[in-house]
Order: sequence, then C-alpha cells, then structure tokens
Amino acid sequence: MADRFASRRNIDFLMNEVFEVGLLNRFPYFADHDEETFRMILDTAQKISEEMMFPYYKDMDVVPPYWENGKVHVHKAIVPFLKEMGEGGWIHSEKPYDIGGQQLPLTVKALAYFLFGAANYSMHVYPMLTAGAGNLIYQFGTPEMKNTYLEKMYSGKWQGTMALTEPDVGSSLGDLTTIAEPTDQGYYLIKGQKIFISAGNSDVVDNVVHLMIARLKDGPAGVPGISLFVVPEYRINEQGEMEYNDVQCGGIEHKLGYRGSPICQLTMGEEKDCRGWLLGEEGKGLAQMFKMMNEERINVGIGAISKISGAYYAALEYAQQRKQGRKPDQKDPATPMVELIEHADIKRMLLFQRSVLEGSLALAIQLSLYQDLVTAGENAEENEMLMDFLIPILKTYPSEMGILATSAAIQIHGGYGFCGDFPVEQYYRDIRIDPIHEGTTGIQGVDILGRKISMKNGRGLQLYIAEVEKAIATAKAYPELDQQITALESAVQMMKDLTAELLARKSQISNEAFLADAVLYLDFMSQIAIAWQWLKLMTVSVKVLKDQPAEKDKAFYQGKIFTGRYFFDYELIKIHSLALRLRSANKVTVEITREYFAD
Amino acid sequence: MADRFASRRNIDFLMNEVFEVGLLNRFPYFADHDEETFRMILDTAQKISEEMMFPYYKDMDVVPPYWENGKVHVHKAIVPFLKEMGEGGWIHSEKPYDIGGQQLPLTVKALAYFLFGAANYSMHVYPMLTAGAGNLIYQFGTPEMKNTYLEKMYSGKWQGTMALTEPDVGSSLGDLTTIAEPTDQGYYLIKGQKIFISAGNSDVVDNVVHLMIARLKDGPAGVPGISLFVVPEYRINEQGEMEYNDVQCGGIEHKLGYRGSPICQLTMGEEKDCRGWLLGEEGKGLAQMFKMMNEERINVGIGAISKISGAYYAALEYAQQRKQGRKPDQKDPATPMVELIEHADIKRMLLFQRSVLEGSLALAIQLSLYQDLVTAGENAEENEMLMDFLIPILKTYPSEMGILATSAAIQIHGGYGFCGDFPVEQYYRDIRIDPIHEGTTGIQGVDILGRKISMKNGRGLQLYIAEVEKAIATAKAYPELDQQITALESAVQMMKDLTAELLARKSQISNEAFLADAVLYLDFMSQIAIAWQWLKLMTVSVKVLKDQPAEKDKAFYQGKIFTGRYFFDYELIKIHSLALRLRSANKVTVEITREYFAD
Repeated sequence: MADRFASRRNIDFLMNEVFEVGLLNRFPYFADHDEETFRMILDTAQKISEEMMFPYYKDMDVVPPYWENGKVHVHKAIVPFLKEMGEGGWIHSEKPYDIGGQQLPLTVKALAYFLFGAANYSMHVYPMLTAGAGNLIYQFGTPEMKNTYLEKMYSGKWQGTMALTEPDVGSSLGDLTTIAEPTDQGYYLIKGQKIFISAGNSDVVDNVVHLMIARLKDGPAGVPGISLFVVPEYRINEQGEMEYNDVQCGGIEHKLGYRGSPICQLTMGEEKDCRGWLLGEEGKGLAQMFKMMNEERINVGIGAISKISGAYYAALEYAQQRKQGRKPDQKDPATPMVELIEHADIKRMLLFQRSVLEGSLALAIQLSLYQDLVTAGENAEENEMLMDFLIPILKTYPSEMGILATSAAIQIHGGYGFCGDFPVEQYYRDIRIDPIHEGTTGIQGVDILGRKISMKNGRGLQLYIAEVEKAIATAKAYPELDQQITALESAVQMMKDLTAELLARKSQISNEAFLADAVLYLDFMSQIAIAWQWLKLMTVSVKVLKDQPAEKDKAFYQGKIFTGRYFFDYELIKIHSLALRLRSANKVTVEITREYFAD
Repeated sequence: MADRFASRRNIDFLMNEVFEVGLLNRFPYFADHDEETFRMILDTAQKISEEMMFPYYKDMDVVPPYWENGKVHVHKAIVPFLKEMGEGGWIHSEKPYDIGGQQLPLTVKALAYFLFGAANYSMHVYPMLTAGAGNLIYQFGTPEMKNTYLEKMYSGKWQGTMALTEPDVGSSLGDLTTIAEPTDQGYYLIKGQKIFISAGNSDVVDNVVHLMIARLKDGPAGVPGISLFVVPEYRINEQGEMEYNDVQCGGIEHKLGYRGSPICQLTMGEEKDCRGWLLGEEGKGLAQMFKMMNEERINVGIGAISKISGAYYAALEYAQQRKQGRKPDQKDPATPMVELIEHADIKRMLLFQRSVLEGSLALAIQLSLYQDLVTAGENAEENEMLMDFLIPILKTYPSEMGILATSAAIQIHGGYGFCGDFPVEQYYRDIRIDPIHEGTTGIQGVDILGRKISMKNGRGLQLYIAEVEKAIATAKAYPELDQQITALESAVQMMKDLTAELLARKSQISNEAFLADAVLYLDFMSQIAIAWQWLKLMTVSVKVLKDQPAEKDKAFYQGKIFTGRYFFDYELIKIHSLALRLRSANKVTVEITREYFAD
C-alpha cells in the first residue's frame, strides 16, 4: 500500500505562492487570519487525513455499509472522524463567528477538503454533505429552523443530505413526483420515494436531515411546482423529544466504488406521517437547491482531484521503486534493470496524471478564491459570475480526465495495478461516480454552452477571457514561457472565434443541433482553463527560480515547469481536433434516429 | 439485466457481405466449407453463448474462484461448457482434419470467439488459453509430446496456460529467473516462480499444462538464455499414471474484474521434482512463445471488442426503454418524457461505442482473413506481414478505447450504471485488464514504431497502405462517400508524411527520444486503421442500399452509414492533434528526470 496520497508542498505552493491566500486578511471578514493560521489549520487537516482517514481507505471498501431492518450500518472508523469534524469546527469553518464559524477562506477549506478526499473520499462525504445541507438551512431557514438543526449538524451529531433523485427522475428534476401536501400545522405531509441518497441513513448519527425537493400537491407541472423542504428522519415534538418522521430507508445499492458511503433508497410517508418544513419560498425549490448543488459540484470536482492525487502518488511511489527493463539505448541484458520512472512512457503517464491533478487543483483554488472575494464584498458580482462560469469545468474536467488519470496509475502498476493489494484499482472505481453525480457531464455541457456563455450577454465569458489575458500579460515578463504564451494566446483566439461562430449559427439551427456537441465544447473550454492555470503555475515557478532558491527547492519549481510543458505539449494540443469537430455543421448525432440503432 | 450482448446480424454482415468468407472455399484447405456451414457453426456458437455462458456472466463475478490447500475452486458452470468446447471441437477447429480439426477458417472461429467473449469472457478464457497452448505443442512438439497432450487438451479435459510473468519480471521478459536444469533423462528440472497465470490451476480439469519460459541453468543473460518448456501439473509416469509434478499453486489474486478466471501464483520445484520438457530449440524460447503471444494478442483484441459489445447492447437497451427529460426544443413540462435514445448526447455516446465496436470487429476479421490466406498459401508472405503489422493496433485500440466505451455505457445508465444491478459496471471492470495482459500498451507502441514500420525495409507499412488505398479506390464508385474518401486519403497522406519524418529524424536522436511518443503514434495509426474498416463497411452498405433492399433492411444499412459518419466526424478527426504532437521535437517526457518528480 502506498503511504502518500497528496503533496503538502504543492498545497502550500498554491496557497502561499500562487494564490497568496494570506492577503485575504486585507478584508475585514478574514482579518483575523494570516499565512500562519492557515498553515496550522492545514497541519491539522493533514494529521486528520493521515491518522483518521487514510488508514481506513481500503477497509471501508472491503467492509462496506450494510442494511438491516431499515438501518444502515456504516464503518465504525467514521465515529471518531465525525466527532473530530464537529469539535474542530470543520463543517462550518467558513461561516461567520456569530454562528460559531471561523470565517475561514473557502480556499483554505477547499485545500483541507482536498486532503480529506484524497485520504478517504467515502469518509469525507459525510461531513461534506452535512456542510452543504447546513448551508441551505443557514441561507433560507427561519430562525427556529436554524436553532433546531444547525448546531446539531455542525457538531457532526446529525447528518445532512441532499435528496433529489427518484427512481424515474435523475437529470430531469422538473419531473419529480414526491408530493408535499400543505397542512395548517406549519408543516407539509411528504409522500414519495428518493434513491441514490448519499449518507441517507447511518447508525453513527442521531438523526439524518434531508434537504429534499418535492412537488406541491396540485402545484404546476415542471420546475415551478417544486419546493425545497427540510425532512428529518426524526422530528422534534412539542416536548422536545425525537419522534420518528416516517422516512424509511428501504435498502442501499451495491456499487462499483465509493463504497464506504451508502447510497440509500428512502420512502417518505408510508404511514402518512412524514413531515417536511418548507425552506424559503414555495415554487423556488430547484433554484434554492442549486445553491447547494453549485457548492456540491465544486466539491465533486475537488473530490475527483483528490482521487487523482491518491492514485498519482501510489503510481509515483511504485514507479520509483519497481525495477523493470532497461532504457532503449541500453541493449546489454547483463546491465541491471532500471526503475520504471526511468522510462519515457512511464514518465509520460506520470506527467499526464500530475498535470491533470495540479492544473485542476489550481482551478479549484481559483474558484474558491473568487468565492472568498464575493464573501469579502470585493467585486462581488464579477467574482460570482466568474465562479458560476467555471463551475461546469471544475465539476467535469477532473471527473472525466480522472477516469484516464487513475487508469494510467493502474497501467504503471502493470498486472499488479489490476489487483486488490494496491490501492489504484480502488481509486479507479471510486472516481467513476464523479461524471454522474451532482449533474452528469451531459448536463454540465448544456450548462456551459446553453447557459453560461450567453448569461448576462456573455459577460461571464468576457470576464473569464480577461482573467486569462491577465495571466498571459504577467507571464510575458518571462521569455522562457514564450512557447506556452503563444499557445495560450492562440487558444484564447480560437475560443473567441469558435464561440462567436457557434452563437452566430444558433439562430439558424434547432436548439437540439446547437447543443448536440455541448460536451465537446466543455472539453475544449476545459483544456484552455487548465492551460491558463498551468501558465500561472509556471510563471510563479520561473520567477522563483530567478531568485536562485536552494538546490532542493530548484527541483520542485523545475518540476512544475516540466509538468506545465507537458500539459501544453500533450493536452492543450487536443483543442485543434476538438475545434475542427465543433466547427462542423454535420450533426450525425441529431440526424440518426432510433430505428437506425436496430439490427 | 440486459438480454443481448452482441448482434448476430452484424456478424453475418461482416462474414458474408464485407469479407465474403464463403469464398475461402476456393482454396483446398477450406474446400469443404461454405456460407451455409459457417452459418450453422455460428448458430451453435450463439446457442452456446446464450445458454451456457451469458447466464453466468454476473454470477462468476459475484462468486469468484477461491483457493484452498493448493487447489483453485472455480465456478461449476465451467464444467458443462468445457465439455461442450471439447466435444464440439471448438478448441482446435481451425486445425487440419488429420489431428481431428475441422479446417475452419480463423475468421469464423474469431466470430465465434467474439460471441463467447461477449457472453462471458472469463469463461471463454479457459478453452482459449488451451487452444493457444495446444498450438505451441502442435507446432514445436515432438510426436510423443503431441500424443501425450493434444487429445487431452483439445477435448477440454486438460487446461493449457501461458506461463511467462514472474514476481519481478513483467514486460522485461528477458530478465526472467525461473531456471531449467538439464538432466540426462530427457527432461529439465524447473525451479522458480510464476505469477498472474490465468487458469493456472482449477478443480474442473484433470491436469494443467503450462507452456512456460525459463532460463537454462548457466545459460546466457537476456533473451538468448530463454527456452520454452511444457510443464504439466501432473506428468505421466512410465506406468502411464498421473504423477504430481511439483507445480504448486500458492494462491490467486483478488482482481478488479475478469474475476471468473483465477490468476495464479505458481511455485515450481519446491521439492526439486518439477520436470519440464523442452519445446523446440534451446535458446529460442521467447521467439517460439511469441507465436502463442501473437495469437493471444489477437484474442485480447477480440476479447476487448466482446466486452465493448456486451456493454453497448446493455446501454442501447437501457436507452431505448428509460424515459428521461425532453428534447431541447420542447419546453412544456406537461408533455411526456422521451426515451434516452431521443437525446443527441446519448446518441453520441451510443455511436461512439458502436463505431469502436463494429470498426474494431471488422479489423479483427480482416486480420483473421489474412491468416486464413496464409493457411491457404495465398500470398502467404504478404498476408503474414499484414497481420503482423496490424497486431499491435488490434490488441490496443479496443483495449484502450474499451475503457471509454464501457465508461460511456455506464454514463448512459446514469447512477444505475454505477450499481451492481446492471451489467455495465462489470464490463468496465473486466475490460481494464486488456491494455495490460499479453503486452502492455507501451509495449505495443514500441512494437509498431520501433519494429513494425521498419521491418523488411518498411514492406509491412507499404502493403498496409496499399490495402487502405484499395478500399478507397473501391469506395470511389459511390459519390455519397466523397467526404469520407477525402478524409481517409488525407489521413493516409498524413501517415506517410509523418512516418517518413519520424524515420528521417531517427538517426539524429536517441532511441529513447524516437520511441518516447510511440503510444501516441500507435493511437494515430489505429484511428486510421479503424477509419479504413469503416470505409469498407460504408461502401458495402451504400452498395446494398442502391439495390433497394426491403424496408426493414434499409435501416440496418443506413445505420452502418450513420455510424461510419460518426467515426469520421468525431474519432478520425483526433489524428490532427496527434500529428501535431508527434511532429514536435519537444520531448519533455525524455528531458524530465526522476528528481523533478520529488516534492
């Protein structure tokens, strides 16, 4: 088993050198923090991830949760971890002091979450979901609701979930059928079924609080009929006692990966006594839920990056130790074998993983920083738009590329990679959920091409392009980066031209034809976004190298430059074929109809 | 669970309309066969796959083999299947009549093997490996050896294996350490360890016959020291009795997929009494083993195609039945939901899977046909060279693309695809072994770029290009195919130019730099090879459509044309980015050295 799953040095590099998160203390909200407090927080996060999480990564896969008599029994290693999450204030660390938060920047929380996810994503999901659910109550709840739920949730004693999917309704949420019938008691009677609810039931918490969308009885069809409810497993009665709320867990799924966290089937109102409390306004359920959804999409992106990290460090360690063959120019079989890492094709696979990992992680911190600036009130509108614009990329790129990155980690291990004695096959299984949950890749494609590039007259795209151009302008101080600067400039031009061309064509073709290749457009945009981040990482590295750092530090920064070069040479280059495809008016995927799949 | 795993209609299309396998009966070796006998043979293969194999696909995954006291206990459904394989003559059906074969074309055997693999690859592997091992004995064995082994193996009573890998030796076979010490008794004493030996022990056969490579005691280092031996689990003593041959199975691996077939650890000669019989010449072991290896590489390619097929038909069935959402131009939520297959992005994923599946299967039949022509003595040298040239492509393209194709099948299922109630997650796990076993993708890349394109002064490449150009010339009768013809012509020109450029550069750079992007070159070549097959499939389809086929047949041929269009529009197009990369002299994967991975 590998003994590393992430690079702390890279985390510090991003936090202090690339994004200079310490400078956030110029804003009142973050004024009590500085580089030093961030370092201590991440020290603790690292300790938790190394001591309480990673040791159970494999065991939680081998001994998954089981369902018995309506209760889900989960791995007991979660108990001390949830306690630590609650006592350490990790669940709501970014919240204001007045509700017990620490006013921590999301950038720092994201880096801690990255460590947690890399150490043991299934374990990390429990508090992560509680944090998201808590946010909704925090944002839309009445004072009474906040009083009832938040302290219990933030202490880790009650679990939060997001309950959207139903047996017949996945991506098409507007069609959901769970019904909420108003009463004159201040609550609604909920009746219906939900499936795939992560951490939807567990024997290590006292209560599970479902943030659930449901249709108002006799309400309109589609999205306008949907409202958001708090539906606890146990409600508090007038005597302040816990009372069963008729939320039955009917079973859990056997899954490909991500096995440490149960995904549950729930039936509400079988006994006609499941009560839900409206959160926010009637009919605004989906829009409100998307507050949590956006947060969870960022978390899914970070989770995918985490798994890529775990698999990468396992592969790196293996490549450094395992001897096999000789370099191509060494034909003498009497010479000793060399370590895998000496082979160019192995280094290619390692650089692929690493460039996806570090480029995506930089993007995740970039988005978190935009959110911190929103919190700080700094160009809030612009920064929120930038974050919104980039969410589909952060959700999708590491999720989809992660399949190939964890696959490369298996490949480096050869036959051993396919076996359970090494962790990489588990990362490969675990990551496969990420292109699916919290909005499939198809949904993300439609989001960016159908919504984000044209939102507010294309202002999001303009702001984004300005950000990329700012990074290019900074890089121009360093002629060493000429090749990457030219490549990114040309990519930005392609992005402008292609996007304009697509939008110009939009009015002449069906919406269906316009959106048919949305996923490829998202891929095209993602490559450029990651190249943008790599140019930033390379710029900082070149700059530091000019100051003659210590010998051992040189290798670190030089390694960043090599990895960035790899990304531009091998990954960004894919946009040429993608652009050829996206420009084509041939839409065979629209033209073909179902009868032509018959044979 | 899906109830289809392959299209018989597509098999017949390939056999009768595209490759006209029936015409092989113009050669004496195949003279007794015709389209009708092939049809009957495939009818039987279909029945076997549907009745004896597919029903156990999932169960053999859920109830994998287990090891106890040196014996591996495998799923009992294998017993009647092996009996059927033996009695039906499936293991050596292509062999001459005089040893009980049926002189069946490999093209037909390959199609039957495709069906077997799609129904249950883990089960199929047992007789497949026996066939390969038997071939080696057939080709290099003494009459006595043939007498001892072949009948038992061909009847399915004895299992065959290929035993190459050792704990410290995978891709670098020249370094193996298992020792063979000559005796004056006509056998060698074998001592060493092998791992990852598929079907290396099982309780459903009477004996396991390992085709094992080992180093002659005191022989030279590297490949020249390696010889090939027959090492049975039980040897026949002078009294004609079975006698334990000191081949111990020390355990099996827990694997990501492909679970129905155990991969075994073997220890030979622990009691100093493991005997091996030399096959062929001393020191020629690896070259001889590569006869079997080439056959198994084709089988791995076909196996990968099989799994893609199983996953595709599961996804197709799901997409035809599952309703979700509406078309983008339908905004009214009161209208009914449509089936997934109505959505362009779903059709894109289906077309991706199908174009990989059908294009690769055509390539597999193409190679098998070359082999049949070799057997028939028709331009044997050229046809053998063509087959050799294309083996790395057939081994790799479906194996690597299969990861993405089976992943697309999961994606179409949404959350359900991640769960064990549907077969697609199993196909996704099962296929992950294919880029590894029988020569990793890295090894295949070096094979094509380092060996195949320059073998016999580039004659293999020239012959291959002539084959592609022949297909283009035939297609030119149909102006409907202009776009694909132009694309393939331009791709062939790129292939010529790029290959010439790389070879011209070869003498100026290190072998390491020359081979660094070999895997990408293989990818580039593969896209063109599959496009070549698609042009052939499209040409036949356009031709048939001109003859006004029955209405229901029209959809079949039109479906081929749509799928071919998809391949050219979405897949072949990738060569542009690949060529940009391959032309670049920047070799960051060579330049970076291990210290730059440290942090």
